[in-house]
Amino acid sequence: MSFQKLDELGHRIEALNHALAILGADEATHMAPGGGEARAEAMSALAGMAHRQAAAPEIADWIDAAEQEDLNGEQKAAISEFRRNYVNLTCLPADFVERQTRTRMRCEQLWREARGKGDWAGFLPALEGVIELAREEAQMRAEALGLAPYDALMEQFDPGNRTAEIAPVFEDLKSFLVDFVPNALEIQKTKRAQNPLRPLSGHYAVEKQRELGLAMMAAVGFDLTRGSLSVSHHPFCGGVPTDVRITTRYRSDEFLSSLMGILHETGHALYEQNLPKAWAHWPLGKARGMAMHESQSLFVEKQIGRNPAFWEWALPVVAKHLGEDWSMDEILPHVHHVERGLIRVDADEVTYPLHVILRFELEQDLIAGKLEAADLPEAWDAKMKAYLGLSTIDTPQDGPMQDVHWPSAAFGYFPSYTLGAMIAAQQWSAIEKDIPDVNAQFASGQFDAVNDWRRERIWSQGSRWSTPELIERATGEPLNAAHFKKHLEARYGQ
Amino acid sequence: MSFQKLDELGHRIEALNHALAILGADEATHMAPGGGEARAEAMSALAGMAHRQAAAPEIADWIDAAEQEDLNGEQKAAISEFRRNYVNLTCLPADFVERQTRTRMRCEQLWREARGKGDWAGFLPALEGVIELAREEAQMRAEALGLAPYDALMEQFDPGNRTAEIAPVFEDLKSFLVDFVPNALEIQKTKRAQNPLRPLSGHYAVEKQRELGLAMMAAVGFDLTRGSLSVSHHPFCGGVPTDVRITTRYRSDEFLSSLMGILHETGHALYEQNLPKAWAHWPLGKARGMAMHESQSLFVEKQIGRNPAFWEWALPVVAKHLGEDWSMDEILPHVHHVERGLIRVDADEVTYPLHVILRFELEQDLIAGKLEAADLPEAWDAKMKAYLGLSTIDTPQDGPMQDVHWPSAAFGYFPSYTLGAMIAAQQWSAIEKDIPDVNAQFASGQFDAVNDWRRERIWSQGSRWSTPELIERATGEPLNAAHFKKHLEARYGQ
Ligand SMILES: [Zn+2]
Ligand SMILES: [Zn+2]
Repeated sequence: MSFQKLDELGHRIEALNHALAILGADEATHMAPGGGEARAEAMSALAGMAHRQAAAPEIADWIDAAEQEDLNGEQKAAISEFRRNYVNLTCLPADFVERQTRTRMRCEQLWREARGKGDWAGFLPALEGVIELAREEAQMRAEALGLAPYDALMEQFDPGNRTAEIAPVFEDLKSFLVDFVPNALEIQKTKRAQNPLRPLSGHYAVEKQRELGLAMMAAVGFDLTRGSLSVSHHPFCGGVPTDVRITTRYRSDEFLSSLMGILHETGHALYEQNLPKAWAHWPLGKARGMAMHESQSLFVEKQIGRNPAFWEWALPVVAKHLGEDWSMDEILPHVHHVERGLIRVDADEVTYPLHVILRFELEQDLIAGKLEAADLPEAWDAKMKAYLGLSTIDTPQDGPMQDVHWPSAAFGYFPSYTLGAMIAAQQWSAIEKDIPDVNAQFASGQFDAVNDWRRERIWSQGSRWSTPELIERATGEPLNAAHFKKHLEARYGQ
Repeated sequence: MSFQKLDELGHRIEALNHALAILGADEATHMAPGGGEARAEAMSALAGMAHRQAAAPEIADWIDAAEQEDLNGEQKAAISEFRRNYVNLTCLPADFVERQTRTRMRCEQLWREARGKGDWAGFLPALEGVIELAREEAQMRAEALGLAPYDALMEQFDPGNRTAEIAPVFEDLKSFLVDFVPNALEIQKTKRAQNPLRPLSGHYAVEKQRELGLAMMAAVGFDLTRGSLSVSHHPFCGGVPTDVRITTRYRSDEFLSSLMGILHETGHALYEQNLPKAWAHWPLGKARGMAMHESQSLFVEKQIGRNPAFWEWALPVVAKHLGEDWSMDEILPHVHHVERGLIRVDADEVTYPLHVILRFELEQDLIAGKLEAADLPEAWDAKMKAYLGLSTIDTPQDGPMQDVHWPSAAFGYFPSYTLGAMIAAQQWSAIEKDIPDVNAQFASGQFDAVNDWRRERIWSQGSRWSTPELIERATGEPLNAAHFKKHLEARYGQ
């Protein structure tokens, strides 16, 4: 039976992916410094095995044959994700993938060296090589999938997302934000004049911050028997659904950045821990794409973790662990701090979308051949000035050399961040309707009802629906910037 | 070129083994408690892949063809280990291996439950099943390898070891120890009467013990950039040569057991860290068997770590870390404590070999069909009385239910422990000749010369020689119990 063959293939791929996930998390947390070379070799060999097994030509026949078999609804859904996965995996010729991997890895290495020095001229030729291949890739994916080239790239990260639907929503959000950011800053300034910021600085022992982080993780629903918290240079959520590894980085002079980071990764972890167990070894059992994943992390970080109602409960917990007593009037200005900046990863939730929309616009033009890499510094600077009133023309390391995404050929990924923020806000709107006392629940440290809502509508669905379908099924309407705008206005516009 | 194919196969197997080694170490140290089931599934799938790839029928042809190719000495040695490995791996039919794995795993599970209750009757049928299959296994291995059945089992753990050579050496050692143990205990008693034991008890913070352990590891040669120390319930040395994971378990009332455990695992780690890098992905590049491995751990634990000269250097280091001041007269009686006991893993270096020889004798009879599982309690008790003057007839959990080896079908493994102790002593004799001031070196914390000696003669040799060849090449003579007896007499007989 062909379905059986696919099911067994799923178990084999799952074993390799399990190994890759744990080896990856281990590398960032517990590996000896000298272990990197052998680890990289082992992981690349394992990834190769997983790819070869998942992309084997006979699988196309198994999928065709399985579709003719007498299957139940879940199995049919599983087949359709097997197919989607297979097509995305096999639409590029092996020699192209090899060439692209080499080009990309060289560009990433160069980027690591050149960024510190802001050496745009030295970096440019490598980036040009990556962009040239990304255009080819988009073309090949587009033909295989029957999509426009940029859409075919996005399809890897968020199945079903289309520029035609996203661009207008981003346009709407952008024109809102270009006015809203200065307003929010003005409001913040006025408030600070009346109520000056009390610095949170002090000395917060790492062990106490860790205990606080674990307490918060557990409170918002992280299952500590199926995951753990450790330390890494770049925080992440990795591992496997039965053993989710989240990490953070501690500063001893300040606790809020680590705590918010932990809440963010906990949001990713909740999605993973609550995926449907019976489908774990099928593509169907995986989380639905990057935007949806980011919506779950941002939900915990922004909709829960920066919600004033949450802080009514959280403040005494923080005080108990860290031994300091802040008032709500002292903590909330830190939690809601807004600041125009050059760096995306340091941005707050108000300014962040403008960083993303800038990249979304530029990378569409790059893929379409309307913009060349050599013209990026000017194009970036122009948009940066228009959207945030800042210039990067003299510091390319704060401009188009800022992120690893382009050097590593991840075009079509950036939109996921802001889509995630919008989906999180849209989810919050829907939850406020379904659970009218949700703020009161947060204020008393109850997160079960909200988690049940999200488990039923999102986490348990795995990859059963495309991203737009899942948004609509979960929240009752298609992606709509109104919810995110309303959220920002309520929190920063008054 | 067939050699090339074997070389590539080596890289693939190495990647899977790398994953299995890290996943195994991770499971015991950092895995979330709920992650066990998925981890077991993943590891068994990966082990299956490694086995299928390493045992594929075409490999026999590659090995035959490669032998005809124009190869250098190293490559020829590599081929011969590829062959040895392949023959040992493929001499059992796949359906037998499956049946044996099921039987063994059921017996292990039952053992875990039954041992606590000393439920011999409940455990016996499962053990009988395992023994029956072990006899079949020995027969099949014997035919494939042209060896006697028990030798064919030992061959898996220590290539080249033969009962005909080992049994007389063990017999020699046994007749020595049966008299020596009571003498050593009498001498200890007399000394204690003059110089009563000062208990080492106190409160030793885990973090301080860990710092002490790391300092000792580094001092005796462990490369901390290619390995680490963590905590697990059962101490082990795992991971990969570029990232060796050793573990210990701390007691807060006592520090010596953990420190000695760390030194033991460090001995294993030194072997792994110093294997020939260029051969890392060939069977040739692996450590030569269990006896040799144990000889390296016991060298560090017993020949270095319990050597009075070592303690001249170590005592101030311990005192500095733990903040207590012992004299040599106070610490050495603990380091050299001898005690008759029922449990092998708790035994000291004087009594330990008698536990092993007892098992070696019994398991030979079990495999030969001269002894049945049902008769084990009586047979065990009789030997225990004869060798150590203790009875286990009423407590099978302290007798034949004591170890996991038999339930898990590892017959032929026990001799390695005592062979290791003898090889370590024989190595020490050779080193004393080649480095006459070795004790003075230890007393001043210098271990480089001894490590250079061992690196050149043992570690760098990988699996180039059979176990007996390696012993003879490294020490200048075949296995000889005289060195171990001399060692025990010098330390415990006066
Ligand atoms: Zn995230
Ligand atoms: Zn050992």
